[in-house]
Amino acid sequence: MKIYFAGSIRGGRRDRDLYRRMIQHLKRNHTVLSEHIGDMTLQKVTTDEEIYRQDTAWLKECDMVIAECTNPSLGVGYELAYAQTLGKRVHIFYDASRTGLSAMLTGAGYYIIHPYRQEEEVYPVLDDILRENSADLRRISPQHAPRVAL
Amino acid sequence: MKIYFAGSIRGGRRDRDLYRRMIQHLKRNHTVLSEHIGDMTLQKVTTDEEIYRQDTAWLKECDMVIAECTNPSLGVGYELAYAQTLGKRVHIFYDASRTGLSAMLTGAGYYIIHPYRQEEEVYPVLDDILRENSADLRRISPQHAPRVAL
Repeated sequence: MKIYFAGSIRGGRRDRDLYRRMIQHLKRNHTVLSEHIGDMTLQKVTTDEEIYRQDTAWLKECDMVIAECTNPSLGVGYELAYAQTLGKRVHIFYDASRTGLSAMLTGAGYYIIHPYRQEEEVYPVLDDILRENSADLRRISPQHAPRVAL
Repeated sequence: MKIYFAGSIRGGRRDRDLYRRMIQHLKRNHTVLSEHIGDMTLQKVTTDEEIYRQDTAWLKECDMVIAECTNPSLGVGYELAYAQTLGKRVHIFYDASRTGLSAMLTGAGYYIIHPYRQEEEVYPVLDDILRENSADLRRISPQHAPRVAL
């Protein structure tokens, strides 16, 4: 599968090592389009217009979005709404011992939300998601995937 | 005019007094639908589902969105994308001496962005915006307003 991983960049990089470890885990059997979220030296585009064009193209291309939302981020909020307009399946992780998630995300009734309290809890959930979604992708053709307009 | 004011809630409240002062300024001649952003004691709904329903209804109802984006926020990022799908006019303010704005906002080519370095710079810009948009609203009927799909 092609996965769009979303995490904070200009909103703050204190969780970059967590992003990198989650991306490494996903990469064992799948492609992470936005790998630079865990390691900004991998970012290949430079202007804000190029970043926007690249990220929205990847959101259209991906099979699934996985977002780590503990650190607040305008860009991630934007990407999640954008993914919703595309009807993409979106999984949100956040450390409930460090933060509360925005009511615009919890109240939307669209996202699949995974609060956790320790990083070790994240990886088995990721494995379950990847297993289920890979099976779904074999069963469901894109035109039958859910489409929800904002 | 009816204005939707966007600012961080669960992303962090360190700018709440700034939000309150901007809202007070807007309220002198206009209606601010989301007045609670500056004073959470004015929030009338309680569950996340109610908050989501109220805020998206206000985004549909408003004549213009004004966002203070210095503090990163998932909810504000979501609201800005949502306003874009509705074709609403959106003005973004941020203190460039404290933060950089997400490339998803600067690179989208949709938002009218006002970096500032001191709070005093904000109010004359708000006055200009309100004057221009009030004049526009008298000239342009809603069906001729721009509509941009994400």
